[in-house]
Amino acid sequence: MISEVSDEIWMRRALSLAQSASDIDEVPVGALIVRDGQVIAEGFNQREKKFSVLSHAELEAIQIANQKLSSWRLTDCTLYVTLEPCLMCVGAIYQSRIDRVVFGALDPKSGATGSLYNIHDDDRLNHKFQITSGVLSNECGQILKDFFRKKRF
Amino acid sequence: MISEVSDEIWMRRALSLAQSASDIDEVPVGALIVRDGQVIAEGFNQREKKFSVLSHAELEAIQIANQKLSSWRLTDCTLYVTLEPCLMCVGAIYQSRIDRVVFGALDPKSGATGSLYNIHDDDRLNHKFQITSGVLSNECGQILKDFFRKKRF
Repeated sequence: MISEVSDEIWMRRALSLAQSASDIDEVPVGALIVRDGQVIAEGFNQREKKFSVLSHAELEAIQIANQKLSSWRLTDCTLYVTLEPCLMCVGAIYQSRIDRVVFGALDPKSGATGSLYNIHDDDRLNHKFQITSGVLSNECGQILKDFFRKKRF
Repeated sequence: MISEVSDEIWMRRALSLAQSASDIDEVPVGALIVRDGQVIAEGFNQREKKFSVLSHAELEAIQIANQKLSSWRLTDCTLYVTLEPCLMCVGAIYQSRIDRVVFGALDPKSGATGSLYNIHDDDRLNHKFQITSGVLSNECGQILKDFFRKKRF
């Protein structure tokens, strides 16, 4: 129960990072990384602003966490993200040995932890990780819907 | 035929980038990106030196190409890499709309363009790309074998 409550607290913070993306006209996805009950890195999607395909929220956060820990390994870390991660981000997650991923909304078009693929649960890879999905999924989905609706007008 | 010859030329250059990785005690993988017959970006694995899980050869090159073109889209580009790309790198390749990937050695443990997955040929994703494999595969595999043999002593 305590875990569920803290998952919602961290996801609410990830949602505010998604809002920061929306504020600069980027697709609103936010992510953060928690270790020992502390946030060690935060990120939000900045693909257009940075001209970088690597600037998904998750990779922004992973890069900061790598530098903070002076290591590419993020053992004992949990990553929170408002949208189901894509293949690129899931690849970075398993390679960095993150233990657990908590996400909000499903991404049926490119999600790789349940929707199109189940990369987190592939015995052939050298690291598996736990998934918790659907935390604040309505809010996490709504911020995306609002963004794209605005774009159409 | 001309294409095969130029593939070998570019792969030889990627091999010299792999050597640059080996010289600084990194797993020797090299990559470059060609557009309109010109190299626009080069990279080699620097995961340990940079403390970054994102510093695979392919992502180093993609990041440079993104900056050079001021765009996260790498349409009309071919990526050359000495080793079959992993899920993270393949994810970045399809997301950046790279047209073609040429690689040397297979990676049976984590390759995602033939070995474990066929991400380049997944109709569900919003971009597919062409694969040419096995270019200078012996040399590309040998540089890795030599590196790991040295590490064991």
